[in-house]
Amino acid sequence: MALAFRFITFLSDYGLEDEFVGVCRGVMKQFAPTVEIIDIAHGIPPQDVSAGATVLAQAVPYMPPAVHLAIVDPGVGTPRRAIVIGTASGPPLIGPDNGLLWLAAEGLGGATQAFQIENEMLFLNPPSRTFHGRDIFAPIAARLALGMSPEEVGPSIAVESLVRLQIPSAKVDDDHIHARIVQIDHFGNLQLNVSRAELEGVGVILGDEIELRLGGRQFKAPYSQAFSEVPTGRLILLEDSHRHLTLAVNMGNARESLEARRGDPVIIARLQRAPN
Amino acid sequence: MALAFRFITFLSDYGLEDEFVGVCRGVMKQFAPTVEIIDIAHGIPPQDVSAGATVLAQAVPYMPPAVHLAIVDPGVGTPRRAIVIGTASGPPLIGPDNGLLWLAAEGLGGATQAFQIENEMLFLNPPSRTFHGRDIFAPIAARLALGMSPEEVGPSIAVESLVRLQIPSAKVDDDHIHARIVQIDHFGNLQLNVSRAELEGVGVILGDEIELRLGGRQFKAPYSQAFSEVPTGRLILLEDSHRHLTLAVNMGNARESLEARRGDPVIIARLQRAPN
Amino acid sequence: MALAFRFITFLSDYGLEDEFVGVCRGVMKQFAPTVEIIDIAHGIPPQDVSAGATVLAQAVPYMPPAVHLAIVDPGVGTPRRAIVIGTASGPPLIGPDNGLLWLAAEGLGGATQAFQIENEMLFLNPPSRTFHGRDIFAPIAARLALGMSPEEVGPSIAVESLVRLQIPSAKVDDDHIHARIVQIDHFGNLQLNVSRAELEGVGVILGDEIELRLGGRQFKAPYSQAFSEVPTGRLILLEDSHRHLTLAVNMGNARESLEARRGDPVIIARLQRAPN
Repeated sequence: MALAFRFITFLSDYGLEDEFVGVCRGVMKQFAPTVEIIDIAHGIPPQDVSAGATVLAQAVPYMPPAVHLAIVDPGVGTPRRAIVIGTASGPPLIGPDNGLLWLAAEGLGGATQAFQIENEMLFLNPPSRTFHGRDIFAPIAARLALGMSPEEVGPSIAVESLVRLQIPSAKVDDDHIHARIVQIDHFGNLQLNVSRAELEGVGVILGDEIELRLGGRQFKAPYSQAFSEVPTGRLILLEDSHRHLTLAVNMGNARESLEARRGDPVIIARLQRAPN
Repeated sequence: MALAFRFITFLSDYGLEDEFVGVCRGVMKQFAPTVEIIDIAHGIPPQDVSAGATVLAQAVPYMPPAVHLAIVDPGVGTPRRAIVIGTASGPPLIGPDNGLLWLAAEGLGGATQAFQIENEMLFLNPPSRTFHGRDIFAPIAARLALGMSPEEVGPSIAVESLVRLQIPSAKVDDDHIHARIVQIDHFGNLQLNVSRAELEGVGVILGDEIELRLGGRQFKAPYSQAFSEVPTGRLILLEDSHRHLTLAVNMGNARESLEARRGDPVIIARLQRAPN
Repeated sequence: MALAFRFITFLSDYGLEDEFVGVCRGVMKQFAPTVEIIDIAHGIPPQDVSAGATVLAQAVPYMPPAVHLAIVDPGVGTPRRAIVIGTASGPPLIGPDNGLLWLAAEGLGGATQAFQIENEMLFLNPPSRTFHGRDIFAPIAARLALGMSPEEVGPSIAVESLVRLQIPSAKVDDDHIHARIVQIDHFGNLQLNVSRAELEGVGVILGDEIELRLGGRQFKAPYSQAFSEVPTGRLILLEDSHRHLTLAVNMGNARESLEARRGDPVIIARLQRAPN
């Protein structure tokens, strides 16, 4: 059977300790044995929709054409909507309507249409109140890969009605920037909601020494390009692979060293120009 | 080459930090390059056969037709038997004979035949004493997927002789239930060995306030249907996706909040009827 | 499209919490949709090249013919070389030139040629300074699987110039052995840089009681064959599945019990012959 999409990407907060992810894989393979599942990540902090949305949006641009299945769903079992979003570039997204999918849809050219999942004929019967990944999302994701039209899942809903997350933006204030930690990765690197252009807009150039305030404490770090431009254990500010600024410790873990948490505010200022 | 089974499902306590799981995948792919491996879970607590058996039994009904490979094997290297079980619905199970496979076999229609793995021609040569996943189970699972008859692994053994786990059952005592925590998932939800019917048998209906005793302490929780029917951080008793009752904290972690461990006893009683 | 290699194996220290591994998978599937990725492990301790090299070398002999992609890369973004190594048995290895690949190459018959990755036409454009897995290694690994000649990645470099790790070897001293813990696995088993032959060379035979010194403390353990030859919770010295000696606790965790860390020295001596 020819597939409409060869791939389903899969992101969740299910973890890999127990059978949640494996069961969703099994259900998708029951419906679409030849589809390939690309796991984006299953270690999103439990119920952290915002973290899931960020990871999904950063991953989706690097994926081949696919149905994108994402589940971080603290409202499972309540009347929160379950949705399929159609995008300008083609790949559909499926998951709960809690903001998880929105950023990723923008990276796929923007949402062009949306449907509310209501067609119970498509569910594993009878669906549980606590595991819609298995009972609702996986069987529908598989059928979308097989070529089922998104319209079959239920009524069309206005794209404008979809839930969006408030993404905090940095505030540039003369010669310093009020930023926030928007993501912390496996290595403990602290991704900030500041772009290189914003930093350079306050007069910072590569090689400058930066002053940072975080959690009532003050730190210094050079604005550089690669982790190992500072000695082992030293703090560094650099552009990460998603064009955000990131705070890192060479061969170390900035989250632990700075006792930082996601969402923490960070004030960035230029300390002094490094001598030429 | 046509496969007898397109899929091998794989569950273990090997974790994903080092090469154990990857090596088993490699060995299976050497023998059966076109077979697809569906990972059920590899985060079973080390050597916890009972936890592995529960997770496997909960996952297998949602899998496509497959050879089911499961390895939680504290007795590796001793004379404990290694087995292949044939089931009424078709899919064979392979692993150590320590109770790990039995519950899953029941979910596949029951064990119809069993064979003790003894045919050394099928092993990686010479097999180690500590890693039968790589040296014995993976190469045989792959060959079963290719269509090898289970009889080739070794002598037939009586199904009645297979090791079974003692599953503790709840004790209903007039107006309360003596239960146990049989599983704790990634979210910290506490699965009990009590069904909805048993709970309702002692007069509890949806919306009732329940009294729980656990670890010498007393808790209250409503008997409800979805996590978010209680405020953030509140305890709730609800039916999980496997039709067991589960104790959960909305947007939180019941294991941590209640300092609960697998196997702990829980006493459940109706506190009072909620007013209509 | 026929593939030169049906498989790409993939090892990293990226972890599975966030999108790093998923994004590399996506990029490989964009370039080579039909290639299959076999994950060896992604839980190598961050930046621990030596641990990654050990795990890779222990896994590669069990893999089907494949392009072997490995990324533990503390020097990312610096002038450290990125390389492709050709091996006597055929499968190429790709990753940073920091010693990560060398041991595995030896297990594949030895490095026969090496190329420095410099051809920017093969990169995702423009490559980041912090995520060469996504921008350089994944797209090239995929093209190698598709049949691209390693010569296309850049200039040939001398095999002798490749970075090698110093592997500490055990020192046999009359009737005892000065060893080191070279690897600790998921179960907390402590792999030593001592072979069975070396141990038996100082007069130890199966069943002997061994005296061990570790971290200023002294332990006893029998030299045996299977974990469960000692009671639950007891220490045992046995040959592991890679023909190294390993220190384990039956049904327990030797790393925790002995408070051991990778690299720690261990002195092994025969205590007394067990009575016949």
